[in-house]
Amino acid sequence: MIKAGIIGATGYAGAELVRILLNHKEAEVKWYGSKSYIGESYAKVYRNMFRFVEADCLDDNLEELSRQVDVVFTATPQGFLAGVMTEEILQNAKVIDLSADYRLKDVSVYEKWYKIPHKTPQFLGEAVYGLCEANREKIKKARLVANPGCYTTCSILTAYPLVKEGLVDPNTLIVDAKSGTSGAGRGAKLPNLFCEVNENMKAYGVASHRHTPEIEEQLGDAAGQPVAISFTPHLVPMNRGILATEYASLRQAVQPDGSLGYPSEAQIQSAYEKYYGGEYFIRLLGPGGCPETKWVEGSNFVDIGFQIDRRTGRIIMMGAIDNLVKGAAGQAVQNMNLLFGLPEEEGLQMVPMFP
Amino acid sequence: MIKAGIIGATGYAGAELVRILLNHKEAEVKWYGSKSYIGESYAKVYRNMFRFVEADCLDDNLEELSRQVDVVFTATPQGFLAGVMTEEILQNAKVIDLSADYRLKDVSVYEKWYKIPHKTPQFLGEAVYGLCEANREKIKKARLVANPGCYTTCSILTAYPLVKEGLVDPNTLIVDAKSGTSGAGRGAKLPNLFCEVNENMKAYGVASHRHTPEIEEQLGDAAGQPVAISFTPHLVPMNRGILATEYASLRQAVQPDGSLGYPSEAQIQSAYEKYYGGEYFIRLLGPGGCPETKWVEGSNFVDIGFQIDRRTGRIIMMGAIDNLVKGAAGQAVQNMNLLFGLPEEEGLQMVPMFP
Amino acid sequence: MIKAGIIGATGYAGAELVRILLNHKEAEVKWYGSKSYIGESYAKVYRNMFRFVEADCLDDNLEELSRQVDVVFTATPQGFLAGVMTEEILQNAKVIDLSADYRLKDVSVYEKWYKIPHKTPQFLGEAVYGLCEANREKIKKARLVANPGCYTTCSILTAYPLVKEGLVDPNTLIVDAKSGTSGAGRGAKLPNLFCEVNENMKAYGVASHRHTPEIEEQLGDAAGQPVAISFTPHLVPMNRGILATEYASLRQAVQPDGSLGYPSEAQIQSAYEKYYGGEYFIRLLGPGGCPETKWVEGSNFVDIGFQIDRRTGRIIMMGAIDNLVKGAAGQAVQNMNLLFGLPEEEGLQMVPMFP
Amino acid sequence: MIKAGIIGATGYAGAELVRILLNHKEAEVKWYGSKSYIGESYAKVYRNMFRFVEADCLDDNLEELSRQVDVVFTATPQGFLAGVMTEEILQNAKVIDLSADYRLKDVSVYEKWYKIPHKTPQFLGEAVYGLCEANREKIKKARLVANPGCYTTCSILTAYPLVKEGLVDPNTLIVDAKSGTSGAGRGAKLPNLFCEVNENMKAYGVASHRHTPEIEEQLGDAAGQPVAISFTPHLVPMNRGILATEYASLRQAVQPDGSLGYPSEAQIQSAYEKYYGGEYFIRLLGPGGCPETKWVEGSNFVDIGFQIDRRTGRIIMMGAIDNLVKGAAGQAVQNMNLLFGLPEEEGLQMVPMFP
Repeated sequence: MIKAGIIGATGYAGAELVRILLNHKEAEVKWYGSKSYIGESYAKVYRNMFRFVEADCLDDNLEELSRQVDVVFTATPQGFLAGVMTEEILQNAKVIDLSADYRLKDVSVYEKWYKIPHKTPQFLGEAVYGLCEANREKIKKARLVANPGCYTTCSILTAYPLVKEGLVDPNTLIVDAKSGTSGAGRGAKLPNLFCEVNENMKAYGVASHRHTPEIEEQLGDAAGQPVAISFTPHLVPMNRGILATEYASLRQAVQPDGSLGYPSEAQIQSAYEKYYGGEYFIRLLGPGGCPETKWVEGSNFVDIGFQIDRRTGRIIMMGAIDNLVKGAAGQAVQNMNLLFGLPEEEGLQMVPMFP
Repeated sequence: MIKAGIIGATGYAGAELVRILLNHKEAEVKWYGSKSYIGESYAKVYRNMFRFVEADCLDDNLEELSRQVDVVFTATPQGFLAGVMTEEILQNAKVIDLSADYRLKDVSVYEKWYKIPHKTPQFLGEAVYGLCEANREKIKKARLVANPGCYTTCSILTAYPLVKEGLVDPNTLIVDAKSGTSGAGRGAKLPNLFCEVNENMKAYGVASHRHTPEIEEQLGDAAGQPVAISFTPHLVPMNRGILATEYASLRQAVQPDGSLGYPSEAQIQSAYEKYYGGEYFIRLLGPGGCPETKWVEGSNFVDIGFQIDRRTGRIIMMGAIDNLVKGAAGQAVQNMNLLFGLPEEEGLQMVPMFP
Repeated sequence: MIKAGIIGATGYAGAELVRILLNHKEAEVKWYGSKSYIGESYAKVYRNMFRFVEADCLDDNLEELSRQVDVVFTATPQGFLAGVMTEEILQNAKVIDLSADYRLKDVSVYEKWYKIPHKTPQFLGEAVYGLCEANREKIKKARLVANPGCYTTCSILTAYPLVKEGLVDPNTLIVDAKSGTSGAGRGAKLPNLFCEVNENMKAYGVASHRHTPEIEEQLGDAAGQPVAISFTPHLVPMNRGILATEYASLRQAVQPDGSLGYPSEAQIQSAYEKYYGGEYFIRLLGPGGCPETKWVEGSNFVDIGFQIDRRTGRIIMMGAIDNLVKGAAGQAVQNMNLLFGLPEEEGLQMVPMFP
Repeated sequence: MIKAGIIGATGYAGAELVRILLNHKEAEVKWYGSKSYIGESYAKVYRNMFRFVEADCLDDNLEELSRQVDVVFTATPQGFLAGVMTEEILQNAKVIDLSADYRLKDVSVYEKWYKIPHKTPQFLGEAVYGLCEANREKIKKARLVANPGCYTTCSILTAYPLVKEGLVDPNTLIVDAKSGTSGAGRGAKLPNLFCEVNENMKAYGVASHRHTPEIEEQLGDAAGQPVAISFTPHLVPMNRGILATEYASLRQAVQPDGSLGYPSEAQIQSAYEKYYGGEYFIRLLGPGGCPETKWVEGSNFVDIGFQIDRRTGRIIMMGAIDNLVKGAAGQAVQNMNLLFGLPEEEGLQMVPMFP
C-alpha cells in the first residue's frame, strides 16, 4: 500500500485528490496537510468526506512528511515547493507537484511570468513534466514530477499530434479556453462570489496568463522549434470543466494526387490516432465532433474533436477535460501510478457523471 | 455475474443506473431498453458513456427481456409496468420498478392520485416497498420491488424514527421539499428549458403531488395510524439533489425529572441512532446540523440533521439526497444487492463529489 | 429634485438603490457613501454604472451627509445607524434605514436576536415600519423609516390579509423561505463562493434567523395577539429572488349554509382583494396560482398565490419578490415617494425581466 | 404615438421587444402576433407581463397587421418574412425584421448558408442592414430594416474600427463567441433543457454557423475587400449575454519615429474613439479592459476592450452585449427610433442590472 501525503489538502484540487485516492486500491492518504485548517477535522472542512475521513488536518512540514510517506502531492501556491525543496526530501519520497514550480525548464521564463524568484532551480533539470501521454517513460523513472496546469493539459493535448506531425503552423496557434470556477480555488475573493460569477462570462489574464509559456515550451518541443501562441482564458459560470477551442492554419502538402493541398479529415484523424489510439484517457470524437465539458465531468478523460475550415485554411480543434481531474488531481494520480509501476488507470476509471 | 436489463435506459434515472452498474463488480447490463432510441448507439445518446458502452438501444419488450436476464429495472412512465406485468415475467427474473406502479398497497389510492386505472392490481400484494433501511428483510425475499420515489425516500427517511417512536405528532407533519431539475426527466418540455428554470424558483403540485400518498402510507405504517401530511415540492435551478425541510409538533412526555416537557436534543438524536446507527447510507449530522445537497452529490447517502424550536414546540428535520442516486438508481441497485444476497454497499461506495 | 445620499452604496442593496434612483424623475444621488471604497470611482466598483455615475465614493459621515441632502438611505450593517443617530440628523434629513436597527419596537427583542446593545433606543418610538402596503399613512408623516427585511417583506405580505381577517390560526404559521444569494451581500466569504453555492441548496439560521421577530411583531399586530411562528430560510443557487411558502391551519367558521367549515377559495381570495385589490405592487395570482421568482425579477412586485388543502385543513400561501427590489431598494424608494408626497410608483414601474 | 405590431411576440426576442416598448414613451404595441398561442392571453404566456399587457395573442397575418400599425417587427424563423413580403406591406408600414431574410445582399450566399430558397429577393436591394452605429443615415430613410443577428452585432462592432482603419489584417480575424442560452429560443428541444446546458459548455456550428457570412459581408465592406473569417459560437450556462473574443494580426506601419512597427495602444484606442466616441450605446473600456456580459445585462450597451500582444503581433479584442437587447429587441427599437425621427436612445436608457 502506497502511503501518500498531501500538502494543500483543503484546496479544491487537494480535496479531489482525497476523493480519488479513497477509491484507489493501492494507496491511502496518511497526511492531510493544510495551512489554514491545522487541527481541524478534515471532514468538517469537506463535509462530503464525512464517514470517509476521520483524520484532522496537519501542518505543511514537507520534510517531516516526506519521512512518513512514499509519495507527497503538493497542491500549493506558486513558490511554496521551490522554497522548501531539498535533496533529502527527494531521497525520502517521490514528489508530485501540482503547482508550477518545476514545470518550466528555463528559470528566467518562470521568473518573468510568475514574478517571483525561484529558490531551488537546481532541481529543474531532473523534474519531469508530468503529461503522461507525452512523457510516460521519463515519468516512470522520476523522483520529482511537475504536474501540468489545467489549461495546459487541455490545450497541449488537443493540439499535440498535429503540431508534432507538422500538419499545422504552430505559430498561428490561438487557444481560446473556458474554465469552470473551481479553477480559481477556494480562496474567499470577491470576483469568485456566486453573484459575481453566475450569469456572467469574461476573459481574464489576456496575453499574460501564466500557463502560456508552459504550453509554448511543450508544443515547441513537439514542433522542434520555438513557438509563440495566443492563449486567452475565460471564466464560465459552472463548477468544473475546461473547454479549449484552438485555431491554427493548416500546412499545405503534396496530396496523393500530386497536387498541393490541405490535409484531409482522414489525415488529421489518423494523426490523432497515431498518438492517442492506445491511450485510455483520450477519447477521439472524430471529424465534426464537438466535445462538451459535461460529458467528462468527474472523470480523467480528455475528449477531442476537430473541424477543418477550407474557406480559411484553418483547423478548429476542441478539447474538454474536468479541470480538477485530468487538469489536476486525476493526472497527479496517473503520474503516481506510473511512478510506482501500477496500471495507469488504477483508481481513475470513473464513469463521467451526467447530468 | 448478475445479468441486468433496463427498460427506460435513456432517461436520466436509467442512465444513472448504467453509470452505477458499470462500477458494480457482480452485475452487468445486458439490455439497454428505450422507447425513443431503438437501434441507436447508447453512447451517442449519452456521450459520457463513450468507450464504456458499445451496445445499441433495444426495445422495451419486457417478456423477452425477462428471459435473458436475472433482474429487470423499469425506469418507465406510470402505468407502463402495470400494463405489461405477468406471472411469467416474475418467474423469469426479479423486477425492480422505479415507477410508482406497485408502491401503494391500496389500488383506489393509486387510481385517485395517478388518474389512470391499474391494470394488474393482483401483484400489489406481493410487491415490496423498496425502502431498504425500513424493509430490508422483506426485500431480500421479494420477486417484485417497488423502488420508492425520490421525494418520498428523502421525506420518509428524514422523519421515520421520530414518527415511529411517537416523538412527534405525525398529523402536524409538513414536508417542504426542493428538487434539482433532473427529477423532471429528459423530456423536451418548455418548463424544463434552461432559461425557464435558471435563476428561478417555484412550488408546483401544491397539495396534489403524487408522492404524497406514498409518504403517508409509509409513515402511517410507522405511526400505527392513518396519517395526513402537507407536502410541497419545489423546482430548484440545479441538476441534482433533493432537500426536504420537515416540520412537526413535538409530543410532550414525562421527562427524567418527572415534569412534562418536550424531548431533548439527546433524546431526538438517540431515536435517530436507534434506527440509523448501523446504516451505511445514512449519515446523521446531529443537533443543529444542516445538510446540503452538494455534500451527497453523486452518492447514495442520506444526510440528516435537525433543530428543536422550543418557542413553537416544533422540530425542524432536514434531509438531503441525490435524487438520481438514493432517490432512484442507487436505491434500485441497493435493492438488487439485497435481492441477490450481495453486500448492500456493493457498487455504491461512491464518495460524494465536491464541488 | 430630491437630493439623496446613500451610506453603504457599494453593497448589493446600495447598488440597486443607485440603479433605481437613476431612473427616478424626482431624485438624484448626491453622496455615494462607502466604508471600503472611499475615494474610488463608483463606476469602477460597479462597472454596470459606467457612463451613468461619474462620482467617487465618499465616506460614511452621516451627520455631514444629512446637511447636504433631503433623504439618507442607510444600507449598512446592524448597529451602524443606531450607533450614530442623533436628533440633529433627523432634523436635517429624512432617514430610510435598510438595516434592522429601528424595525423592532421592543429593544430587548432586538438585543436578544441581534446580540448587540442598541445605542439609541430613544428613536424606536418614532420610527415607522416601512411596509408601505400596511403602514402607508404613518410613513407619510415619518422622519425615520425602518425599511423591512427582504424575507420579512415577502413573508408578511403573503400572510397578512388572512391573519388580519382571522381566517388562519397565526400560531400554526410556518414560513419556509428560499432566497437568492445576493441576500448574503457582497462580502468575500467562503460560503458565498460560486463553487459552494452553485448546484447546492441548504437551510440556515434554523429557528434562529433574525427576521423571525420582525415577522412575529407585524403579524402579531395584525392578529391582535402575540404570535410565534417557525421561519426557515434557505440559500438557492440564483442571484435574485425570494420565494416564501407558508403553511397555516385554516379556522373553521359558520358557512353561508349554516354548517361549520373551512373558508372557500372565494373567501380567501376576497380577503386578499380586500387588502391588496388597490395595490399597484401586489399581483394576486388567485387560487392555485404558484408564483415564480423569475416573473418578478428586477421589479418591485409581490406575486401571491395560494392553495387550500382540505385533507389537512391547511392553506399553503406562496409569495415571490425580488429581494433586492421589493425586499430592499425598491421598497426604500417606495417609502421615499411616500415621505415626499410623490406618486408611490414613481421610478418603480420596471417591467420584470424574463428570462 | 407609434403603433407597433410584433409577429413572433411569444419568442424570447419578441417578449423582450414587448418589455422595452412598454417603457417607450412614443410607441405602443397593438398586435401581439404568435403562431403557437393564438387566442391565449399574452400575460399567461409571459407572466412577468401580468398587469402590463391585457391583450390576447393574435395570428401572424402580416398583410392585415401592416394596415393597422405604423411599424411591424418580425421575430420569426428564417424564411417566414421572405415568404410573405409584398410591396403593399411596405407601403402600409415600416418593417423591422429580426430574422436573417434581408441581411445578406447576395441571394446565393443566403441560399447557401440557410439552405432554403429566398422567395422575395427583389426587396434585398432596398433593405438596409440595421446596424445603427454603422448605417445610421441609410436606416433613417429605409422602409425595410434587416436587424442584425446577435452574434453578428457583437462581432462586427468589436472589430469594425480596426478593420475600417486598416490596423489589422481582416483575413486573420478569428471570432470566438460565447452566448447565453436565450439565443437558442423558446422551442422545447432536448439540447436546451436545463440539465443539458447547466454545468456544461460546448462549441457548435463550427465553421458553418449562419452568422458567418453576415459578419464577412459587413467587415468586407469596411475593409474594402472580401473577407473570410473563422467564427465559432459556444453555448454557455447563463440566460443572457454574448461575449466575443476576437483575434487578428496587427498590421505594421511606419511609426512616428520612422521605424516600422505595430500600432500602439493609444493608436488603437484612438481608432475606436474615432468611430464610437459619440455613440451612446458603445462604452469603450480602453486598453486592458475586459468586458463582462453581466455588466451590460438588460441594457442596449456594447462594452468593448482590447489587449495588444506584442509577442505574437496580434490584438485581442473583446466585446460584450445582452443578446436579447443590443443583439435583438433593443437594436430593433433603436432602428425604430431612427425610422421615426425620435431620439435614438428613447426607451433604451436602461441601466444594466447587477447582479
